[in-house]
Amino acid sequence: MRTQVCIIGGGPSGLLLSQLLHRAGIDTVVLERRSRAYVLSRIRAGVLEWGSVELLDEAGIGDRMFREGLPHTGTYLSVRNRGFRIDFDDLVGKKVMVFGQTEVTAELYKERDAMDGVVIDEAEGVALHDVDSEKPYVTFTKDGREHRVDCDFIAGCDGFHGPSRKTIPENVRQEFERVYPFGWLGILSETPPVSEELIYANHERGFALCSMRNQNLSRYYVQAPVDDDLEAWSDARFWDELRRRIPESAADSIVTGPSIEKSIAPLRSFVAEPMRWGRLFLVGDAAHIVPPTGAKGLNLALGDVRYLNDALRAFYLDGDDHGVETYSETALERVWKSERFSWQLTTMLHRFPEQSPFDQRMQEADLAYLEESRAAQTSLAENYVGLPFYGRPS
Amino acid sequence: MRTQVCIIGGGPSGLLLSQLLHRAGIDTVVLERRSRAYVLSRIRAGVLEWGSVELLDEAGIGDRMFREGLPHTGTYLSVRNRGFRIDFDDLVGKKVMVFGQTEVTAELYKERDAMDGVVIDEAEGVALHDVDSEKPYVTFTKDGREHRVDCDFIAGCDGFHGPSRKTIPENVRQEFERVYPFGWLGILSETPPVSEELIYANHERGFALCSMRNQNLSRYYVQAPVDDDLEAWSDARFWDELRRRIPESAADSIVTGPSIEKSIAPLRSFVAEPMRWGRLFLVGDAAHIVPPTGAKGLNLALGDVRYLNDALRAFYLDGDDHGVETYSETALERVWKSERFSWQLTTMLHRFPEQSPFDQRMQEADLAYLEESRAAQTSLAENYVGLPFYGRPS
Repeated sequence: MRTQVCIIGGGPSGLLLSQLLHRAGIDTVVLERRSRAYVLSRIRAGVLEWGSVELLDEAGIGDRMFREGLPHTGTYLSVRNRGFRIDFDDLVGKKVMVFGQTEVTAELYKERDAMDGVVIDEAEGVALHDVDSEKPYVTFTKDGREHRVDCDFIAGCDGFHGPSRKTIPENVRQEFERVYPFGWLGILSETPPVSEELIYANHERGFALCSMRNQNLSRYYVQAPVDDDLEAWSDARFWDELRRRIPESAADSIVTGPSIEKSIAPLRSFVAEPMRWGRLFLVGDAAHIVPPTGAKGLNLALGDVRYLNDALRAFYLDGDDHGVETYSETALERVWKSERFSWQLTTMLHRFPEQSPFDQRMQEADLAYLEESRAAQTSLAENYVGLPFYGRPS
Repeated sequence: MRTQVCIIGGGPSGLLLSQLLHRAGIDTVVLERRSRAYVLSRIRAGVLEWGSVELLDEAGIGDRMFREGLPHTGTYLSVRNRGFRIDFDDLVGKKVMVFGQTEVTAELYKERDAMDGVVIDEAEGVALHDVDSEKPYVTFTKDGREHRVDCDFIAGCDGFHGPSRKTIPENVRQEFERVYPFGWLGILSETPPVSEELIYANHERGFALCSMRNQNLSRYYVQAPVDDDLEAWSDARFWDELRRRIPESAADSIVTGPSIEKSIAPLRSFVAEPMRWGRLFLVGDAAHIVPPTGAKGLNLALGDVRYLNDALRAFYLDGDDHGVETYSETALERVWKSERFSWQLTTMLHRFPEQSPFDQRMQEADLAYLEESRAAQTSLAENYVGLPFYGRPS
């Protein structure tokens, strides 16, 4: 098999890249290790920066998103059971969109199918070859048979555990990591969200988050030890704990119900440099992980897609290899800024095991200052709605 | 002896409080443990918030400050030997004033003398009595004789080690503390400052600061282990180390010379609550310490003086005890914000022993974001020039 760009990973970033390149007349093959049913059932992020919304729209999958997505012009922060609002629209004239990653992926598959895009699922044993040559290729096994894809470029959209990043030699690759000493215990519940907008709560018992996927599907989280036994978390215990940590008005009015999903996720910050090695580009989780506070993970992956799409279009359509050559530096500059924001928001809102009373007061002072300073709110808002892709925020 | 307000401590805050109250017709006695010569020789902070400038002017000691002080409309930050400027004037329409604490104290003594203010130096063994009654009093020894001052109120302006804070019972007093794992090695040098404005430098070898007292008196610092041997720091070694950490242009142009003072200071964040106990008010370092990054120490003490002066004037002139009753809450609200700022600036600029490569990148990302975000710069500037005393910053 021969293609121009072989894309490893059929999650939202791989599919979006394939979709955008296809629309520019650039040929792609997408290889996905899992079955399509599995990919479509994964429950992930739910908040899109406006730049992500625009990129998805550009890719032709905006219709349902604009119809069903919930635009949010602000968010709530809470400390000691009292909330205050950050008004994105007023502060920076922008908003975000609540539209689940599951839905984004479903829409992308629909469009890829409609355009006869080549997406090969259950591709096992994917391996990258000669990525630092002009003629890289990818091998995999499907239905017991060996396959080979020759290509000009490889896009590694295969997540933290995929083979792409590991193809970059260890003496070239630098990895930066922080693992946080707690997890997020999350549930999905078919109940109306307690608040029209998200609530990020700092509380002495630990962080909590009230989020949603749509008008009748709520997503709630409480900070919990990452190795806690899920069995010990009955729905009743979860709701009780959540109510203790969120603003009183929310605790009083929350509608509870049975959880339809419950899990504990670890929190990690991770960056691998460089994001390009020869003809291989890393995209999204393959190169970087952020803790979920602030919802940057999917957005950052889609940001990489934007840069890579721009670079490959310039290469194929204009014969300009500048974008390809500088992809790593360009993408990493924005990645580190989102890492910074996610780390800062995580640090400001969670309870750390080693936290002293002084540290706790610093968190509360951070939030008190944020509540009253328009400059501090503007800084939070410009990060939350998404930093610009080329140029400065303000 | 009888007075209305007995002020313990003859440093800048005690003297300023005495001066302001005296001008309002309120009688004070100031007790200072050291000799006046000692107090006047102490080398301390050098950057005044504009609110501090205005308060000193209100106290009648503005002439020399306005004549000799250096107004600064911005400051430089530096990372990896490259500097960028924060323009206070452009961002928040305010500035700061470089005018040494030593000079402030000298001017205050001059004015206190001119007004026949009672300032008793070498007052030993100062002890506070019955502070939670209506009739508190203070005892001390001077020239071998016991003295007693009866008063309505006591202002504890006696620094971190003074007796005032310790008078508040331990079951009432709460203390919050962070000791930083490094110190500032500072020198004074009779050389022209390398830059017209301060330079705060983040560098992999550690923090550095280029500051000044006047046009021919420079104050430079490098982060160093707090228990380092001063003997090991020859002037030549100091200048070499400083040059390595500051922007290249500054390193190339710096004028060096013999140090006329050299010392290592520890860095500490500390807050004691409450700041009022019965008839005793804590002011400045008696209640709180900030690390010197951002120059908040003296300014915060003068801020307490402003609140206490307002409260005592209202009490004596208007019979209104609201300010007296709420002094602790009012002062602490601003104290915690300055603690937050000093802690944040310290954390962003210093090298910590436990710092991982990820943490280091976060520092650099913080500074990179600051360099390009007007919102983040505005937040820094509004804190640096001084948060408002009543009301919100922006």
